[in-house]
Amino acid sequence: MRDDAPDFSGWTCPAPLRDHPRIVMGHGGGGALSAELVRHVFAPAFGGPVLAALADSATVTLGGARLAFSTDSYVVRPLFFPGGSIGDLAVNGTVNDLAMSGARAAYLSCGFILEEGVETSVVARVAEALGAAARAAGVEVATGDTKVVEAGHGDGIYLNTAGIGLVPAGVDIRPQRAVPGDVVIVSGPIGLHGVAVLSVREGLEFGVAVESDCAALGGLVEAMLAVTPELHVLRDPTRGGLAAAVGEIAAAAGVGVVLQERSVPVPPEVANACAILGLDPMYVANEGKLVAFVPRAEADAVLAAMRAHPLGAGAAVIGECVDAHPGMVVARTGLGGTRVVDLPLGEQLPRIC
Amino acid sequence: MRDDAPDFSGWTCPAPLRDHPRIVMGHGGGGALSAELVRHVFAPAFGGPVLAALADSATVTLGGARLAFSTDSYVVRPLFFPGGSIGDLAVNGTVNDLAMSGARAAYLSCGFILEEGVETSVVARVAEALGAAARAAGVEVATGDTKVVEAGHGDGIYLNTAGIGLVPAGVDIRPQRAVPGDVVIVSGPIGLHGVAVLSVREGLEFGVAVESDCAALGGLVEAMLAVTPELHVLRDPTRGGLAAAVGEIAAAAGVGVVLQERSVPVPPEVANACAILGLDPMYVANEGKLVAFVPRAEADAVLAAMRAHPLGAGAAVIGECVDAHPGMVVARTGLGGTRVVDLPLGEQLPRIC
Repeated sequence: MRDDAPDFSGWTCPAPLRDHPRIVMGHGGGGALSAELVRHVFAPAFGGPVLAALADSATVTLGGARLAFSTDSYVVRPLFFPGGSIGDLAVNGTVNDLAMSGARAAYLSCGFILEEGVETSVVARVAEALGAAARAAGVEVATGDTKVVEAGHGDGIYLNTAGIGLVPAGVDIRPQRAVPGDVVIVSGPIGLHGVAVLSVREGLEFGVAVESDCAALGGLVEAMLAVTPELHVLRDPTRGGLAAAVGEIAAAAGVGVVLQERSVPVPPEVANACAILGLDPMYVANEGKLVAFVPRAEADAVLAAMRAHPLGAGAAVIGECVDAHPGMVVARTGLGGTRVVDLPLGEQLPRIC
Repeated sequence: MRDDAPDFSGWTCPAPLRDHPRIVMGHGGGGALSAELVRHVFAPAFGGPVLAALADSATVTLGGARLAFSTDSYVVRPLFFPGGSIGDLAVNGTVNDLAMSGARAAYLSCGFILEEGVETSVVARVAEALGAAARAAGVEVATGDTKVVEAGHGDGIYLNTAGIGLVPAGVDIRPQRAVPGDVVIVSGPIGLHGVAVLSVREGLEFGVAVESDCAALGGLVEAMLAVTPELHVLRDPTRGGLAAAVGEIAAAAGVGVVLQERSVPVPPEVANACAILGLDPMYVANEGKLVAFVPRAEADAVLAAMRAHPLGAGAAVIGECVDAHPGMVVARTGLGGTRVVDLPLGEQLPRIC
């Protein structure tokens, strides 16, 4: 234990939530409630060893090929927002989940659940956005399905994509590999996606237009892997934001994490919006950012490679892994204090992806 | 052209439907409206060569492995029905799509879209059914996702699964491979799934309890492939029933198909229910049946292998591929007449899968 580490030995997780008799919005928020649902309902029911790893994507071997395999459903409201649409999200979200295991996405599946009465032109616009995002990410939509539900069910358009991609030889990136000494890097400014969606949904103006950072991160990850295959962990901080991403890694690896709050890049427009709304930028969703846990010896070179890539131009070191307070994330505040960064219960902003 | 073939040279497809300004239930029915949506909206937007093949699953090559990849969303009402549940469907539907290219499903992804307020115990029952069906089919749930939408949206539970499996060497099963001379075989009695779902949804009694045929067909397909790798086409007649499945094959391969109506196995309870409701069993969904197009020389041996398998005990030859009326399916009626078996516009029974 480091001398300067705060003592959180008496700290415990939020109370178990497994006995919720009904589903609440937070069960879909990517935080503690989502984790409870996976741990107490889905994992015991499905019972597989791969799912139990609980990473953004599963790594499986088939026909001698090491594949990353991942899925996400998309229920964002509104369907179009500054900087993107549900179609862009459906590609980039799944491509990024694959990239977080070092894989370059190759093929996507795409399932539409349409509400009776939705304009065909809206479906076409979403499909075109999805196709354009797929071409930009270098991934092919290989198979699909469409269901229609009666008017009053669904909500215009829900989407699901699943993706497969090859994991390069020698690459083993997963939350469990974080170790004390690892440097924590974020690829750029946080909070843009959540604030952009909220601004149009609630008709809010924050002085400056905020655009979603929605983007495919496969190229950035390739640039990082070109420096070293020894990246320990990658995670895209979507639902639950940076706090959930780092918290889950700390829990999975049983390491402590210390973040330097001042080093976390928060754009002024995100800070302003969060101040007005009483939100914490650390918990707001991103759709084109990643957080990396990198061995100290490689950190400078990886950071330089990230900054040389358009999607990593704003990359910054924001903290480190420590022996102290295993499973817990703490932030050093600008004033020299320390606070616990809890795993969020749910999501501050539902339906943002 | 065979001498006894009817002359349908003046026959044309139903009028183009591409200018529906709004989505109707039939766009999700697996018939002509669904095909229009794929042809005029999704295929141009996505633009990939694999999707253009429009098979139940895509066959892709990744890391030297030849993979089948498929997805389906499930919106069946009610969630539980005689013989199965949405959880069983979500496994068997996707496993069967893979089996229709000769692949044994290896891994599934699973995306839940839950409605706020649904009982957690219902989610758990669905998850348990899904897990049990996966174990029975020998497939592992490797990755998943959960989203929650506000009460009043969604409809309790929607599910999506995507699946991947290896296509054995030397196997090339796809709709385009049907050729004149092929024998058409169905693996057993038709219409059970649609009638079972309808009976509980509408509170109807048809004298005899009807159970869904929901089952995973990977083992049956393996038994057929053990006879010969030269199966030309396999298709599971789900939405749109046998009529849609055979019609799509005829269209894709540009062959004519003649079905012997008397040879199509329709259980008495399905016939009764359809007579009462004015439905045609040929258009009612199945979830544990397949239709095979097999070279004449192999047909007897394949039929025998199917009948020796529990899921093919009721297999029957129901027709053949012909040179005449390419792209069209006709049925010889019991009375010696002939009728065109159209591709259905939509689905007679929405939300059956």
